[in-house]
Amino acid sequence: MLRASGGWFRGVGAIGRGGGVSRYTVLAVLWLGGTAMLAVSDEGMWLLNEPPRALLQQKYGFDLTEQWLQRAMRASVRLNSGGSGAFVSPEGLLVTNHHVAADALQKLSKPGFDLYHDGFYAVTRDGELKCPDLEINVLQEIVDVTAEVQAAVQPGMTPAQAAAARRAVMSRIEKESLERTGLRSDVVTLYNGALYHLYRYKKYTDVRLVFSPEKAVAGFGGDVDNFEFPRYCLDVAFFRVYENGKPAATPHYFRWSPTGPQQGDLVFVTGHPGATQRLETLARLRHRRDVTLPYTLARLRALEAALLQYSEQHPEKRRQAVADLHSVANARKAFTGQLHGLLTPAILEHKQRQEQELLATARQRGIPTEQAERALATIAQIQEKLRSFEKEYALLESGHAFATPLFVIARHCVRMAEELPKPSAERLREYRDSNLESLQLSLFSPAPLYPELEQTRLRTSLLFMAETLGGDHPAVRLVLAGKNPADRSAELISGTRLFDPQERRRLVEGGAKAIEQSTDSLIQLARSIDPLARQLRQRYETEVEEPERQAYAALAALRFAVYGRSQPPDATFTLRLAFGIVRGYQAEGQQIPWYTTIGQLFARAEALGGREPFTLPPRWQERRRLLDPDTPLNFVSTADTIGGNSGSPVLNRAGELVGINFDRNRYGLVRNFVYTDEQARHIAVHSRAVLEALRKIYPAEPLLNELLRRQ
Amino acid sequence: MLRASGGWFRGVGAIGRGGGVSRYTVLAVLWLGGTAMLAVSDEGMWLLNEPPRALLQQKYGFDLTEQWLQRAMRASVRLNSGGSGAFVSPEGLLVTNHHVAADALQKLSKPGFDLYHDGFYAVTRDGELKCPDLEINVLQEIVDVTAEVQAAVQPGMTPAQAAAARRAVMSRIEKESLERTGLRSDVVTLYNGALYHLYRYKKYTDVRLVFSPEKAVAGFGGDVDNFEFPRYCLDVAFFRVYENGKPAATPHYFRWSPTGPQQGDLVFVTGHPGATQRLETLARLRHRRDVTLPYTLARLRALEAALLQYSEQHPEKRRQAVADLHSVANARKAFTGQLHGLLTPAILEHKQRQEQELLATARQRGIPTEQAERALATIAQIQEKLRSFEKEYALLESGHAFATPLFVIARHCVRMAEELPKPSAERLREYRDSNLESLQLSLFSPAPLYPELEQTRLRTSLLFMAETLGGDHPAVRLVLAGKNPADRSAELISGTRLFDPQERRRLVEGGAKAIEQSTDSLIQLARSIDPLARQLRQRYETEVEEPERQAYAALAALRFAVYGRSQPPDATFTLRLAFGIVRGYQAEGQQIPWYTTIGQLFARAEALGGREPFTLPPRWQERRRLLDPDTPLNFVSTADTIGGNSGSPVLNRAGELVGINFDRNRYGLVRNFVYTDEQARHIAVHSRAVLEALRKIYPAEPLLNELLRRQ
Repeated sequence: MLRASGGWFRGVGAIGRGGGVSRYTVLAVLWLGGTAMLAVSDEGMWLLNEPPRALLQQKYGFDLTEQWLQRAMRASVRLNSGGSGAFVSPEGLLVTNHHVAADALQKLSKPGFDLYHDGFYAVTRDGELKCPDLEINVLQEIVDVTAEVQAAVQPGMTPAQAAAARRAVMSRIEKESLERTGLRSDVVTLYNGALYHLYRYKKYTDVRLVFSPEKAVAGFGGDVDNFEFPRYCLDVAFFRVYENGKPAATPHYFRWSPTGPQQGDLVFVTGHPGATQRLETLARLRHRRDVTLPYTLARLRALEAALLQYSEQHPEKRRQAVADLHSVANARKAFTGQLHGLLTPAILEHKQRQEQELLATARQRGIPTEQAERALATIAQIQEKLRSFEKEYALLESGHAFATPLFVIARHCVRMAEELPKPSAERLREYRDSNLESLQLSLFSPAPLYPELEQTRLRTSLLFMAETLGGDHPAVRLVLAGKNPADRSAELISGTRLFDPQERRRLVEGGAKAIEQSTDSLIQLARSIDPLARQLRQRYETEVEEPERQAYAALAALRFAVYGRSQPPDATFTLRLAFGIVRGYQAEGQQIPWYTTIGQLFARAEALGGREPFTLPPRWQERRRLLDPDTPLNFVSTADTIGGNSGSPVLNRAGELVGINFDRNRYGLVRNFVYTDEQARHIAVHSRAVLEALRKIYPAEPLLNELLRRQ
Repeated sequence: MLRASGGWFRGVGAIGRGGGVSRYTVLAVLWLGGTAMLAVSDEGMWLLNEPPRALLQQKYGFDLTEQWLQRAMRASVRLNSGGSGAFVSPEGLLVTNHHVAADALQKLSKPGFDLYHDGFYAVTRDGELKCPDLEINVLQEIVDVTAEVQAAVQPGMTPAQAAAARRAVMSRIEKESLERTGLRSDVVTLYNGALYHLYRYKKYTDVRLVFSPEKAVAGFGGDVDNFEFPRYCLDVAFFRVYENGKPAATPHYFRWSPTGPQQGDLVFVTGHPGATQRLETLARLRHRRDVTLPYTLARLRALEAALLQYSEQHPEKRRQAVADLHSVANARKAFTGQLHGLLTPAILEHKQRQEQELLATARQRGIPTEQAERALATIAQIQEKLRSFEKEYALLESGHAFATPLFVIARHCVRMAEELPKPSAERLREYRDSNLESLQLSLFSPAPLYPELEQTRLRTSLLFMAETLGGDHPAVRLVLAGKNPADRSAELISGTRLFDPQERRRLVEGGAKAIEQSTDSLIQLARSIDPLARQLRQRYETEVEEPERQAYAALAALRFAVYGRSQPPDATFTLRLAFGIVRGYQAEGQQIPWYTTIGQLFARAEALGGREPFTLPPRWQERRRLLDPDTPLNFVSTADTIGGNSGSPVLNRAGELVGINFDRNRYGLVRNFVYTDEQARHIAVHSRAVLEALRKIYPAEPLLNELLRRQ
């Protein structure tokens, strides 16, 4: 994906791999013992091809039928902007969160026409707005390709050979699958390297905006209320997928529940959790705590401050930057929570006990543990290596030093000229044939970019690079080229023509020759830094990624031998099934109810004097009397979610949509590392609230009728 | 001083020594050659006992009389909150900046009574508000004590012995001076260790607020316009010093010019520049660029984000945090500018040339350079040492890990119990007899502190400590005591009684026994960390401070031998005299006029739609028609200023006050390292604007009459 930030995957890469989760507060009670808890808690982001049938039957008497599961799979969708969604009509209508839609809303807006802030509703289909670069993926099939992938890596191969062989076989599997099925085909690494599954998706690239509420009610409470409950947000948006210029037929969809859930109900969440670190070793988590997360937070704080300062200069500048600003603030809050989690001694002690127990139990049962012990030691050593070049890797190869989509574009142009002539299996992974269409969707996107904003982001990230590596670092000298970050960013932005999608296309089509001849400032920058960036990537892949995969595979083998497949793999931004109970909780001596109401939304707005972020849109203020104040607005359940699950459907036993997940509470922020349901909850928009708002505020009868299947 | 942040000295300590200056943009033209430029530029923050008489005579035909100089000295004042000011009537009335007064305004405010935001005017003297802990210093005399201080350090002493001997002799000189004169007596280190001067101040601790405008007009444009010009701020406030409950007689004062300056006028600035680094070596500046400034910026960004998030939660929370927030934002912007300056190759190259030229010129003239060369090498080695413990020193001894005034209070209580029984000369320097009265003024201040705000600051700084040192660092484990920063800060703030000044007094009076028996959470924290903190301080003083002083003395000796005293010492938050010409400049192809007007203030507010920080106070909007729109509001000159000069009087040849300095433009932000007057300017409030506002907006006739000496 092209975006320099946005969605759960912000900060993806070696560093900051793992999306938004965690916050300050500690687990009140950490479960003790290894995986024994799995039998009794609602932990689990389950693979759809290994669903927890027995557990659901045993614990809740729920029969997870094949039909239920097939609908869950084909009606749940993934957005390439970094979230989840669900089909809610047979005519391609899908619901997600406003904050997941934010990227598209922003790209559809322009000066004087601010969809993100003001909301939007297309009364007729003619009025639905085509998004410039939104892609929807719908999972069709999962195939286990572990044996094939592992067979490609021969004993005695060097890490570099192993990494190349693994990349090649994955690329080949994907290409063959794409050619045979016509479906987007991605090999997904599970358990950090123990299993490889091929995911086949139906892909939609003509996606149109149908409805979005005003930001003020979709994100009521802003950064203050983010990761908090009680909560009062109508965080929804509706899109429609099209094929051949017509609404796509989506026979698999979720019926919209007009009643929603009740206290104590069993509910399910089917979505695309981004990343968890529950199976990572103690050494790896220590590295995150002491290196990766501090770096990530420093980077996000610098970027957030810069975007905020830019926004304050002028209302139009605020319009340009605000969606990104919210997104960065969200990530900053989530990563802060992660760091607090890893600084909570009980959590790392728990991880340590888990590792010790696995080995002890295996030994008791006479299962050999030598390989797993070696793997633990190897992973610890890898962290030491990683420490020595992780920041350079993140800045120069992951691109944190160049925090503008324009640089991402420039690098793609430069690298495509070099990579595309090679056979698909030998290319850098993002240029494999099966990924090119999606890549070009974003590369050639006509979404507007604003020179002053991009200059601000670039200046900030160049400065951050210099802060992190020091002014005499060869890469810093190379990148800054004798100027300070302010002057260099001004020079780079004024010297590029990559704002124009036609110019990007010309460069990609012109291949190596066009790149060599280009005098574009950013193309030249991307070229000059590429040898070093590729070298860092090579180091990362051979010194970290590949040996970690092998080590985690050994650890997983022992875990499977001891516990079986009782624990699902860490999240990978692929479809998972979670379940839980709708239930309030105790906090600070008070019982927090399981839901909030529309009446309470107005009460909070009044209590806080109508200041941002607690102002309600004019339309809501004017039509307040029409609303039933007792309508449930948001609710919570114990189901296991993480960043990336935003926009996931919340389903009842009948497979009806009863809510749209949009957040966790602060207690849920440690779920990157451990599941807890004492106070931790995910938060969803109640299905009734959406109907009430569509009926009385906007009014949006046609949309309402489509949801309720009325003519 | 007690404050954990505020004023120019924020970030003082080994790390971040040096106050607000610099910003993005580079010098268009750097002067070439060594100090030759001094004869032609207006560079210089001159000592009042070594004034540039000949230069002023030669360049501007100005005769700097002893009378002029005496008035400049005794009518210019220093505020312990970190800025400058000036007496403007014989009855103790003094003017400074609103942003310098912010600390006092904040401390005088409470829920529902927000002086900082709403402004204040005491029509009669009865209504003037006593500030809880504001201290005013007025310089009376300077005595050169270099010989005495240097004599105390014998050849062959270890650095530890030398540091102790130097501290002892400085303390003794100060104590004797205090006892003999009754004046506050501070030995000031000049040229980083080449000269030592004793400064004697008259001290006022009964300081009352007379007038302050609304924040919205005092700081119009907020963070956006900070360090920018054209500019539109009425950044002034008036206090009055009292003695024995009556307005103090201040026969030395500046007459308020009713006309103000004109284009081309020679003007003077007499104030207290905080810190510059113009005489630091290349190695030291590289260390600042690569270690100190990145650390400082990371710290400020974390604190700024936390204060901002706290402010957004509720209007009352905003009231509590807003002055500190502006102050931190100002520092962040200034240090960002410094870092951009040091990342500008031309600036470091210039420093390098200076060092080479000094040695080359000396050799040409047959002056021995061995000592200076050794000194340069020594300073480079010191930076390497400093790098290994600077962050620990800053976090644990300078206290950045504990960013709440409550911890500063706790540490003082703990250390006073240990230090006060010793002879004054052997104590840690801040506990020397001559400093105790000022220390107690802030230690026992009744200024309000807010538990939630202090908890937020502490949580943020504890987290920053863990980010910087890592979760397994012994000090982090000791400080966090098995909790994460969120839980630990909650525990610490709920477990302290130091909010109450009486409790502080009880602990200080109770001495060692009271401290030992105290169960106060923060007292116990301060005790537990003290051995390590003192050890770090000892290391800093013996491995960095003392050897640097000796090395800089050697360098200065060579510089004096080659160039004489043609360059004044770096700024030290002591009184200096600067001069310059009132004049506009070229920027981005445009001629920027030397002044702005009140009419332009209204125009900018309108152009930006009246949003914060561009709203004008209701009173200004209502009375707009009364104002003469052509009244000059702000103006610029080439005089040499830096952070700490805020509130400095700008004087004309006649010694009348024509303006109040309050900022520099962005081009002036590199003045920490090099002086330039191509585009760099300091910015002042025009004396006429103050009269116009007092007359027509507030109206404040008695104050106006006092300024204009009318009855």
